[in-house]
Amino acid sequence: MKRLRVGLLGCGNVGAGLVALLGEQRAVIAARTGIELEISRIAVRSASKDRGLPMAPSVFCDSAADVVTDPEIDVVVEVIGGIEPARTLLRQAIDAKKPVVTANKELLANHGAELFGAADEVGVDLLFEAAVAGAIPLIRPLRESLAAEPLQRIMGIVNGTTNYILTQMSEHGAGFDEALSEAQSLGYAESDPSADVEGFDAAAKAAIIATVAFGVEVVAGDVYHEGITRITPHDIEMARRLGFTVKAVAVAERATVIDSDDPGLPEVAVRVHPAMVPLQHPLAGVRDSFNAVFVQGDAVGELMFYGRGAGGRPTAGAVLGDLVDAAVNLSSGASGRIGRLAPARIRSIDDLRTAYYLSLEVADKPGVLASVAAVFGRHGVSIRSMQQHGLGDDARLVFITHQCRERDLRATQRDLSGLREVHELGNVIRVIGEESRPR
Amino acid sequence: MKRLRVGLLGCGNVGAGLVALLGEQRAVIAARTGIELEISRIAVRSASKDRGLPMAPSVFCDSAADVVTDPEIDVVVEVIGGIEPARTLLRQAIDAKKPVVTANKELLANHGAELFGAADEVGVDLLFEAAVAGAIPLIRPLRESLAAEPLQRIMGIVNGTTNYILTQMSEHGAGFDEALSEAQSLGYAESDPSADVEGFDAAAKAAIIATVAFGVEVVAGDVYHEGITRITPHDIEMARRLGFTVKAVAVAERATVIDSDDPGLPEVAVRVHPAMVPLQHPLAGVRDSFNAVFVQGDAVGELMFYGRGAGGRPTAGAVLGDLVDAAVNLSSGASGRIGRLAPARIRSIDDLRTAYYLSLEVADKPGVLASVAAVFGRHGVSIRSMQQHGLGDDARLVFITHQCRERDLRATQRDLSGLREVHELGNVIRVIGEESRPR
Repeated sequence: MKRLRVGLLGCGNVGAGLVALLGEQRAVIAARTGIELEISRIAVRSASKDRGLPMAPSVFCDSAADVVTDPEIDVVVEVIGGIEPARTLLRQAIDAKKPVVTANKELLANHGAELFGAADEVGVDLLFEAAVAGAIPLIRPLRESLAAEPLQRIMGIVNGTTNYILTQMSEHGAGFDEALSEAQSLGYAESDPSADVEGFDAAAKAAIIATVAFGVEVVAGDVYHEGITRITPHDIEMARRLGFTVKAVAVAERATVIDSDDPGLPEVAVRVHPAMVPLQHPLAGVRDSFNAVFVQGDAVGELMFYGRGAGGRPTAGAVLGDLVDAAVNLSSGASGRIGRLAPARIRSIDDLRTAYYLSLEVADKPGVLASVAAVFGRHGVSIRSMQQHGLGDDARLVFITHQCRERDLRATQRDLSGLREVHELGNVIRVIGEESRPR
Repeated sequence: MKRLRVGLLGCGNVGAGLVALLGEQRAVIAARTGIELEISRIAVRSASKDRGLPMAPSVFCDSAADVVTDPEIDVVVEVIGGIEPARTLLRQAIDAKKPVVTANKELLANHGAELFGAADEVGVDLLFEAAVAGAIPLIRPLRESLAAEPLQRIMGIVNGTTNYILTQMSEHGAGFDEALSEAQSLGYAESDPSADVEGFDAAAKAAIIATVAFGVEVVAGDVYHEGITRITPHDIEMARRLGFTVKAVAVAERATVIDSDDPGLPEVAVRVHPAMVPLQHPLAGVRDSFNAVFVQGDAVGELMFYGRGAGGRPTAGAVLGDLVDAAVNLSSGASGRIGRLAPARIRSIDDLRTAYYLSLEVADKPGVLASVAAVFGRHGVSIRSMQQHGLGDDARLVFITHQCRERDLRATQRDLSGLREVHELGNVIRVIGEESRPR
């Protein structure tokens, strides 16, 4: 029986979950792999605090750097989060040829290329299944099962908080503020919810997904993102009537370059925004705080991976899966293979081609619809369907367009806001399920 | 650049798809892995037939044994199907220390233990992602990502033909025969549809899923199975009214043994049958010929994997993913790890505990409901809900029970059929979503 010593950096929810889970599963793992995994050292802020874990006090220490550089430690698991000191610690571990498991999306979404490059150079594993979509096996299938698959688009519900809020709004008619309060009281949303509801969290995950799926350098800052704070009960109700549900989606697409100065550079489009998802689309049934990632490939067709995106124990389960993998690879002399990332051109959101939902309040009098329709026509935006609802002296018009270019839709929106008869411009929401393959 | 020579056994839909796909993806695979994959020999029944593939005629031969034993061949891909000669050929390849990729569910569901054992002994890969749920990455996540996860239950829609038929019945009110004819005319069902509609195909897949998920020996013959041929439009309509949809599911559960003669032996329950699936369950939204596998684990919670279960190109995509994996492992000296399978006790269907849907036609007169209810009571079967619909002189009673033991439900059913007032006993359909963890 081979024994591997694990150094754990951080012991919050996920770290403590990992300690517990490994305690329960050590024998099963040993029987399956012939390797005994032992958490030998745990770096925490306060080593003397009692965490109620079945570990000797001497296992805890307050210097993460000591754990990483300890020659007795074979594998490093990082669940501290944030960029520093995690980045420096992981570099030290990799440079010391120690495999690394991390759940740190922020770090990978900002310094992934550096870390992947370093791991590739020394030939050690850098595994991060838990960093995106928590417990869902997604990164390994993308890296391995689909390594030979020309993927076209990955579209995911990767933030459980916003999915919970939108589910409450859809199924119980709640407004955004009410649904957010409920999510906060259940612990699904932070007291400062902006990372979730403004799309920053999903943008970091989208950057990692694009990196892994397409093998290119994409960082969080490359990702166009819109939050869900402006979605109204009216939008949700209109979605339902039109056969859609509103979901916050992260989308990564491979685009084929036309008219490029550098035809050799792969182009990708990565964005996060609320979207109208057709009720029959597999993502439409993803409710509450669940996550799911929908993958479209040339050969395999449509795939979806569904599960818990967060939570201490589910995330710890994903970390443990990586840890076992790293241990087996280490003992067999193999290692993961993300390979070198290629630089990529990031396609501007202005160049997106999709269909749009658009709602506006207008004066309810003759000729208004003609003026409004003329604005659409002037920008080459073609209307697929329109609904009109009376609101006293006003009328509400709801349009779904055919596919058009985002910049043309924006120009239409700008000109509509200049019409005297248009009293209020509501939300513009992109419509999923009609995308052509980007060209 | 390392070059690996692939011997392909069989060149039907999947084989030809693999040749085409590898042709398209060779450069991408080489860039990602540093390995050039070349299909050097293809064994077919008639080597002289023109298949319209961009391969030199000399690549084709009519002796699969020659391909397997050719010392120039590094990796063997088997897409012949059936048990012999595939079994002998794969044994020869494994014994010659050649990694093997197969899409052959029938072979694995009947002789998996022998082949896994042989591969384990010589330390080569035996990969079979395409054998269950076609293009969906399922086997690798179960073997690797979830290797350290105590899985409790795997529940899947693993037969696209029956899912297509049930979707047509649910969404268009078609009868079974009509929906089957349509599936046949679209090429989704064979002219002899029994392997699909009687549950044999799903049973083979369930055996493989149980084997991989629990590391135990389960063969197709261990799997209790019921087909969908007796499902009526009435059942489908009642399901809808009660908040369910009817799906053909394959279920593999780990049971903890109580009162066993051999407490050391793991017990598993594996079965295939139509089921009432709650409309809000992720499996309920799996439509048409799509497949999906729902996994319940202790730590990761609920996961689902969704995608195309069949089709030449999707299946070829899964085979190619395995082939790349085998190639990388071979060049790095690593190998897959299903490990030794443990023998298992197979729990009898009589010991299943679940809820049931049950429909019967009775004489519409006083006292009948009391007699019927007394039969349920006598066998300890408790009723959760009942609906009555008039049918002229008769009435139709539809029951959903609380969880009970299958043998008690069967006894209830037997006694009900003996009541003079009961004119017809309709289907009994198990209800999903209320299962306790089996004990």
